[in-house]
Amino acid sequence: MTKVADAGKETDRLEAFSDGVFAIAMTLLILDVRVPLREDLAASHRTLLDALVGLWPALLAYFMSFAVVLVMWVNHHRIFTVVRRADHALFYLNGLLLMLVTFVPFPTALLSAYMGTGTFSEFRIAALLYAGHATIIGLTFAWLWQHAIRRKHLLAPGTESEVRKMSAQYRWGPAAYLVAFLFGIFSPWASVGVCLMLVVAFGFRGLLGRE
Amino acid sequence: MTKVADAGKETDRLEAFSDGVFAIAMTLLILDVRVPLREDLAASHRTLLDALVGLWPALLAYFMSFAVVLVMWVNHHRIFTVVRRADHALFYLNGLLLMLVTFVPFPTALLSAYMGTGTFSEFRIAALLYAGHATIIGLTFAWLWQHAIRRKHLLAPGTESEVRKMSAQYRWGPAAYLVAFLFGIFSPWASVGVCLMLVVAFGFRGLLGRE
Amino acid sequence: MTKVADAGKETDRLEAFSDGVFAIAMTLLILDVRVPLREDLAASHRTLLDALVGLWPALLAYFMSFAVVLVMWVNHHRIFTVVRRADHALFYLNGLLLMLVTFVPFPTALLSAYMGTGTFSEFRIAALLYAGHATIIGLTFAWLWQHAIRRKHLLAPGTESEVRKMSAQYRWGPAAYLVAFLFGIFSPWASVGVCLMLVVAFGFRGLLGRE
Amino acid sequence: MTKVADAGKETDRLEAFSDGVFAIAMTLLILDVRVPLREDLAASHRTLLDALVGLWPALLAYFMSFAVVLVMWVNHHRIFTVVRRADHALFYLNGLLLMLVTFVPFPTALLSAYMGTGTFSEFRIAALLYAGHATIIGLTFAWLWQHAIRRKHLLAPGTESEVRKMSAQYRWGPAAYLVAFLFGIFSPWASVGVCLMLVVAFGFRGLLGRE
Repeated sequence: MTKVADAGKETDRLEAFSDGVFAIAMTLLILDVRVPLREDLAASHRTLLDALVGLWPALLAYFMSFAVVLVMWVNHHRIFTVVRRADHALFYLNGLLLMLVTFVPFPTALLSAYMGTGTFSEFRIAALLYAGHATIIGLTFAWLWQHAIRRKHLLAPGTESEVRKMSAQYRWGPAAYLVAFLFGIFSPWASVGVCLMLVVAFGFRGLLGRE
Repeated sequence: MTKVADAGKETDRLEAFSDGVFAIAMTLLILDVRVPLREDLAASHRTLLDALVGLWPALLAYFMSFAVVLVMWVNHHRIFTVVRRADHALFYLNGLLLMLVTFVPFPTALLSAYMGTGTFSEFRIAALLYAGHATIIGLTFAWLWQHAIRRKHLLAPGTESEVRKMSAQYRWGPAAYLVAFLFGIFSPWASVGVCLMLVVAFGFRGLLGRE
Repeated sequence: MTKVADAGKETDRLEAFSDGVFAIAMTLLILDVRVPLREDLAASHRTLLDALVGLWPALLAYFMSFAVVLVMWVNHHRIFTVVRRADHALFYLNGLLLMLVTFVPFPTALLSAYMGTGTFSEFRIAALLYAGHATIIGLTFAWLWQHAIRRKHLLAPGTESEVRKMSAQYRWGPAAYLVAFLFGIFSPWASVGVCLMLVVAFGFRGLLGRE
Repeated sequence: MTKVADAGKETDRLEAFSDGVFAIAMTLLILDVRVPLREDLAASHRTLLDALVGLWPALLAYFMSFAVVLVMWVNHHRIFTVVRRADHALFYLNGLLLMLVTFVPFPTALLSAYMGTGTFSEFRIAALLYAGHATIIGLTFAWLWQHAIRRKHLLAPGTESEVRKMSAQYRWGPAAYLVAFLFGIFSPWASVGVCLMLVVAFGFRGLLGRE
């Protein structure tokens, strides 16, 4: 594939396509925050305000997953400022990553359905699936990154120090979510707490301009 | 991140990604305008025409929210004609803005469900949430704008007068929605009226070619 | 807005954003072709094959609307090969057009729900709304086109003959859908037939390579 | 259309638009993997774990269809590294291909609803529709490819050997899915098995970097 395309353009369409998938996966998350309908309020003798307050698990799950996918997108973008060429395997590795990203609404909806309201065992399953899925995404990200940096011809010239810096940072993502997963075996709340802390920490660092 | 990418390209992917989110958020709004089904007509002894006329709150909410997001997109586009570089914080500020944009379908659906048909208190909650969310979006927009214009190296050269003009205009958006929010405490109809006037005014000004 | 952006790039983001909206509107159409569930088959004593055959109105509406939006996208693309600059009004005219495009799933779902199965009066309402909406889109398209070609500075140089050719063609779109609308007053089947003929004719001309 | 646009840019918007459709079609697939709700668990006396395990047909269908569309996107991308110009017919052929791609969620949902749980005859219908649709997509792909390579002026110069290589490969796709379709007449499981083997084989080849 490398021979035909212009050097500088090669990952453009891969990035645009990935942007589309990230953007849609993030936007679909809101579909699981369901507006309380009048009939349901009447049936359950609740006020609208009560029902809205009762949406907190859905809102928390929405916020967490949006932030997780956003952080991924920022990192995906960052990776492709140093990766300038794509071989065939990178297309499929990226596709695998995108599949995992489009899957995010499922563990999100599961967490939103069972966090706080399910039995301990149900909540635990939801928390383990959520943190486990995030861990797998992190590992796939690391795989894609390792694939790219081991093939010097895929990288833009003069990016060695940037690559080293990024490699050092990317080590922590999967490990952090693995901790959240392990916590989930004993306490689903602790697992959600770790996931939440991670996105809040990433978000604040981001807003403060630290990479 | 600045070192690696080409100068002129730096915000391209951020813009494309944002475009995707804006486009999807706008397009998903139609999913809440539900076609009256034959079974429902039979059960409620209404004609199709009655049922379609009864969709006006959903249609009004759809129209308002589409217009709100469109105005935001036009302004987002305009901001990134003067902002040519993005630092790490801008990526996250933009992400925060996009999260608020993807959230728009929720207050829209709430307004559509309780405008006219809910109790006063239910309608008030819906109107306050709608105008309050629009106010928060406006403030986040202002934050992003202030962040960018205070960092001269993020701006395209020779854009000082354009920046001043835009800064003068962007002052009014959050203020106008705050007024709509305050009106909503006493009269949800007045709140919806102000929101509607705002988008109609923006739309007409836009169609007349005035910035 | 014109001063800041590079000449050749000015409509790029407007096109990309519009592409997103067109693409999503087309893709959402499939959500209204609902898979017959096992419970429904049991309740209605129908086989899966019967139920699939019974989906023909949904499939026909899906096909028609997909083709309508595709033809629009091809023309939108074509317009922006001659329109190279966008003034403020063009952004809003394009926004109005996109709003009408995102609305397409609604008349499509209505037609799919009442074509063949509703009463004559219900089917007529659905057919009139469908053809009426297509007419309004055609008129908005014509408005956008007239706006652009009356402002020479928005056009790429040396496109006069292309503009004339396109103007001659674009005259027929709204008129044809208006005929479909008028037919609908007396016969909804005739109205659907005209709409179907239009997209089939456009599609075949397109596949044969005639503009 | 060729006269106005710049040579290198001509298929850019067609590709971007197609990317959007591919991305959305892939992302919507997750909407059919429904989270088991607490009410349903109570009604069917199942644990959450049982219900999640029972989702395997939906998950398998999701995985297969995501992979099918991903492989198509990679090939679409690859085709447009050698095809550099688009005539009118190519726009419509590409549109036809995109229509078939946006339709993918329907056979996917059908397969997910009847695989394993339906009667033999229902499962067979679902499997035939799934493999049949994939065959038709493959044939449309071949049509588009043949159209492009028979018009030398649409191709980038110096791509003859690449075109020959790709032509040899593209012969097998529709044939393989036709085999899956024929198997489906006698055994729906065999049909699903062939489809699954195809995407797994493509995926592994891809990840191993073989084209």
